Amino acid sequence: MGLDPRLEFVPSEFRNATAAQRDKFAEAANALREFSKVVIEIVSPQVPAVKVQIAFFEALGWQGMAAYQDVLKCARERGLLVIGDIKRGDIGTTAEAYARAHLGPLGNHVCGCVPFEADAVTVNPYFGSEGVEPFLRACREHGKGIFVLVRTSNPSAQDVQASEKHDEALFLRVARLVGQWGRALIGLSGYSSVGAVVAGTARPEAEHLRRILPHTWFLVPGYGAQGATAHDVAVCFNSDGLGAVVNSSRGIIHAYQGPNDPNWRQRIDQAVRQAKADLAAAVEQRLAGAKPGWS
Amino acid sequence: MGLDPRLEFVPSEFRNATAAQRDKFAEAANALREFSKVVIEIVSPQVPAVKVQIAFFEALGWQGMAAYQDVLKCARERGLLVIGDIKRGDIGTTAEAYARAHLGPLGNHVCGCVPFEADAVTVNPYFGSEGVEPFLRACREHGKGIFVLVRTSNPSAQDVQASEKHDEALFLRVARLVGQWGRALIGLSGYSSVGAVVAGTARPEAEHLRRILPHTWFLVPGYGAQGATAHDVAVCFNSDGLGAVVNSSRGIIHAYQGPNDPNWRQRIDQAVRQAKADLAAAVEQRLAGAKPGWS
Repeated sequence: MGLDPRLEFVPSEFRNATAAQRDKFAEAANALREFSKVVIEIVSPQVPAVKVQIAFFEALGWQGMAAYQDVLKCARERGLLVIGDIKRGDIGTTAEAYARAHLGPLGNHVCGCVPFEADAVTVNPYFGSEGVEPFLRACREHGKGIFVLVRTSNPSAQDVQASEKHDEALFLRVARLVGQWGRALIGLSGYSSVGAVVAGTARPEAEHLRRILPHTWFLVPGYGAQGATAHDVAVCFNSDGLGAVVNSSRGIIHAYQGPNDPNWRQRIDQAVRQAKADLAAAVEQRLAGAKPGWS
Repeated sequence: MGLDPRLEFVPSEFRNATAAQRDKFAEAANALREFSKVVIEIVSPQVPAVKVQIAFFEALGWQGMAAYQDVLKCARERGLLVIGDIKRGDIGTTAEAYARAHLGPLGNHVCGCVPFEADAVTVNPYFGSEGVEPFLRACREHGKGIFVLVRTSNPSAQDVQASEKHDEALFLRVARLVGQWGRALIGLSGYSSVGAVVAGTARPEAEHLRRILPHTWFLVPGYGAQGATAHDVAVCFNSDGLGAVVNSSRGIIHAYQGPNDPNWRQRIDQAVRQAKADLAAAVEQRLAGAKPGWS
């Protein structure tokens, strides 16, 4: 389940219309915090993991970032795996600061604690190996995971990630790097701590990536509100029925009819159950039809 | 001047060794805040702009983000142009949240204020046009600027940004997009609000980019601590003597001899003056030798 809460859709019971102008950020951050906590409570019996989009919290300043910290903590306490959707990336020494902020202490840290601790984060690969290395170190030293952006779900992803010559496409180049980065981090499950973001909206590319990256977890955006169907995302699973974490954000957390829908809790619960059933059926069908040798 | 303050180098007068464990983040964030403010005071008569690296603040949780807000505000009040070195990038709806957080209100914002307001920010282009569009909107609507990552300064940049076939290199593909994105935002100065990050450490690529992007401001990292000389970065200037903002971070803000150097203020002041003289001489030499037609 993806927590990308848009303030304008948050149920009105979490808003305080009388907040003074100078407290707007605090009020808004609190609305996101309390709404997110209730959503986590509703969905936690149904889902294994929650992906929290930091940008919507960052837009509310430090108050929003404090709410982000609280939301991650709440999800972890509920026993969910937490994916920080941060898409950070920078040169090595700076990437290390991000890895410390979101995964675990590395070297000379201010104290043992990690302010925005997640189980895994999304990472932007633009800086190459050296920019990813501090995140890999956190995987090795703290049992964390990362999902490297490979093929994203947005319409203009092609601008940069594709190429007229398929072999030279950036997403394939990055996919090869993901395989290399992850090789030393494959666990007993057969899967690596180094995953990939692979859009459900790009089905042929996803099928190809599934073949060339058999040990890689895919974090799959695009299902639901962004247009990918359950059958589209089913190609991201391996023949063992594993290998993909399908994310649905808006389709679940804003499944109700606007901020004044009194039944918003039930609609979220219903939306998450429907998504699960939809995905399970498509994946089962895919597995049943799996050709021999399909991995 | 780049503000990438590493806590372990901050002069000891800003540290409170007796802070309780639970207050470590607040103590550390305060050290970065107060140190950064003094550095801004020292350098502001000498430099036009300050680039603040958000990662070192983010590593200190929401307390660090509050310090980041204060540091940006302090630099703006001193009349400096402020570049938020955030390297954010995401799909359109999420990129909009980042643009709102760092540049200006877009659409339905919680209030008129922008928590981490900068004059320009660095942007990661991995998501293509749609991911950059909200930042372009902030340029159009609020007179802001962006610097899109094109060729970064780290050793492994080649992993992703280059290609065996030069024509297909990612940095050239992104450079062409930067030219397109910036075309409608060229001002009376002849320069666009859409700039590019072009490393001083990659001199042949920088020379090529300077030729193909005549209307683009280059934000040039890599000078000093990262190994680029003044002559390397001089190729990033146009024949009008403009077109490049050269950044020096560690070489200035940590120019002193460790946290206990009593003369740290003078050493910072001296380092910034030396860097300016060094750069000015190299650029003048470059301009004097400029071939006719060199733009």
